[in-house]
Amino acid sequence: MIESPDVLSRLRAISKTAAFNTWLDFDVTRAAAGEVEMQLRWRDEFGQYSGFLHAGIVAALLDTACGFAAATMSDDRVLASQISVRFLRPAVADVFVVRGSVVKPGRQQIFATAELFSLAGEPVKILAVGDALLVPVTTK
Amino acid sequence: MIESPDVLSRLRAISKTAAFNTWLDFDVTRAAAGEVEMQLRWRDEFGQYSGFLHAGIVAALLDTACGFAAATMSDDRVLASQISVRFLRPAVADVFVVRGSVVKPGRQQIFATAELFSLAGEPVKILAVGDALLVPVTTK
Amino acid sequence: MIESPDVLSRLRAISKTAAFNTWLDFDVTRAAAGEVEMQLRWRDEFGQYSGFLHAGIVAALLDTACGFAAATMSDDRVLASQISVRFLRPAVADVFVVRGSVVKPGRQQIFATAELFSLAGEPVKILAVGDALLVPVTTK
Amino acid sequence: MIESPDVLSRLRAISKTAAFNTWLDFDVTRAAAGEVEMQLRWRDEFGQYSGFLHAGIVAALLDTACGFAAATMSDDRVLASQISVRFLRPAVADVFVVRGSVVKPGRQQIFATAELFSLAGEPVKILAVGDALLVPVTTK
Repeated sequence: MIESPDVLSRLRAISKTAAFNTWLDFDVTRAAAGEVEMQLRWRDEFGQYSGFLHAGIVAALLDTACGFAAATMSDDRVLASQISVRFLRPAVADVFVVRGSVVKPGRQQIFATAELFSLAGEPVKILAVGDALLVPVTTK
Repeated sequence: MIESPDVLSRLRAISKTAAFNTWLDFDVTRAAAGEVEMQLRWRDEFGQYSGFLHAGIVAALLDTACGFAAATMSDDRVLASQISVRFLRPAVADVFVVRGSVVKPGRQQIFATAELFSLAGEPVKILAVGDALLVPVTTK
Repeated sequence: MIESPDVLSRLRAISKTAAFNTWLDFDVTRAAAGEVEMQLRWRDEFGQYSGFLHAGIVAALLDTACGFAAATMSDDRVLASQISVRFLRPAVADVFVVRGSVVKPGRQQIFATAELFSLAGEPVKILAVGDALLVPVTTK
Repeated sequence: MIESPDVLSRLRAISKTAAFNTWLDFDVTRAAAGEVEMQLRWRDEFGQYSGFLHAGIVAALLDTACGFAAATMSDDRVLASQISVRFLRPAVADVFVVRGSVVKPGRQQIFATAELFSLAGEPVKILAVGDALLVPVTTK
């Protein structure tokens, strides 16, 4: 990943305009053309009934990582048309890492994928994977 | 929908054990065998960067509706293995309604689907649809 | 379904230009604005290793039904960007019926869904469900 | 990929029992624990209406690659509960290559993913990606 400080600053600025992202309080830690990494520290209010990270928050992280990865390659804002999430393991960690990347860019639609990991312990475990089909806002 | 007060009470009790559900503060408004309805009142902290309901919260509602619909037909707790969400329109409403139903029950896996609507205005608009594949916890 | 003979003829003509559709030899039996029905008679060469209808043929039928439903509402040709299929039961029947419908039309993308049934026996069984996100060819 | 001649022979034998696989006439070219590669030579009868590889055949290849990857890690037969396919580019090639791999094995369910490539030209192009959730037959 060839990191880009400008892109990182832009994504952080975009994220601050999203109220729910602000509540989640994840950090955009890396960004490059077509790639992004974010980290989220666990808080008890994130839990589902077994105490794992709630499926909706897993989806929020994967969707956002896909959208931000797309945003590194587009001046337009993008919106997800569809997302899917596969829950591989109970999402338990002190710190979650999510990495998004563009699979296929395009003028009309952008395919992206993302993975959620735990940051603690060895080996690092993959917890969930997802993908998104994104559309530039101006053409939707 | 032949409503069941007992099932409704049970789902509300389960939901209270999920910290993120408590934060969202939706209400389980109806429940019957294989079916459930929930309502969520808009709060500004739910927004993504355009002010629409965040994709993660859309996913949380659809996933929960699928899980609760499955829970009406199973004594076991259920976990989603995979979900998908299709965003049909910008999710904007004062009150959101989500309806979940079981498509195919099973001992090893349960297929469920859910729809998100706006409650305001005529005609009522469908905003998003989703589906989930759920697995009873004891056998996962 | 308000049936349209003209639309039905057009879909049958389109289907004949697709070599694999010709090999499958399904019939487009009904068509209306946003809706389509097709029927496929079982042949042994359609089987997977247990003798059920092969997942690829299930996907072909659901994808085609979604595409044809979209084609009833668009003068452009459409291509699927993504499909998903949920296999509810072993797909076994003498005659399969597949029904597709448009969930949300649009200039840039069309959401459609389809269901696969067996035609034999009572009650009729739903075997699989699927959905597709379609894009008009000229704008892809 | 640490290749395994025994696994390769077993997968080829399984594939021969599936009538539609025999009609497609793809070859299982490589197999190892959790991984598989197949090749399919283009025939005109595989086409959709624009002459690209039909979405149903793309799905058949991705689904089969996921299933065979799972079969390398399980003595049971496996069935797909759900698949999804993302069509990144028109699927055109003289020879198609599909690679499947297990993302997360399990006793009750197996997550797998697969990619479809063209074999001709430089650079090799990825045409489609998909994923499957598989269930061992004995426990479904």
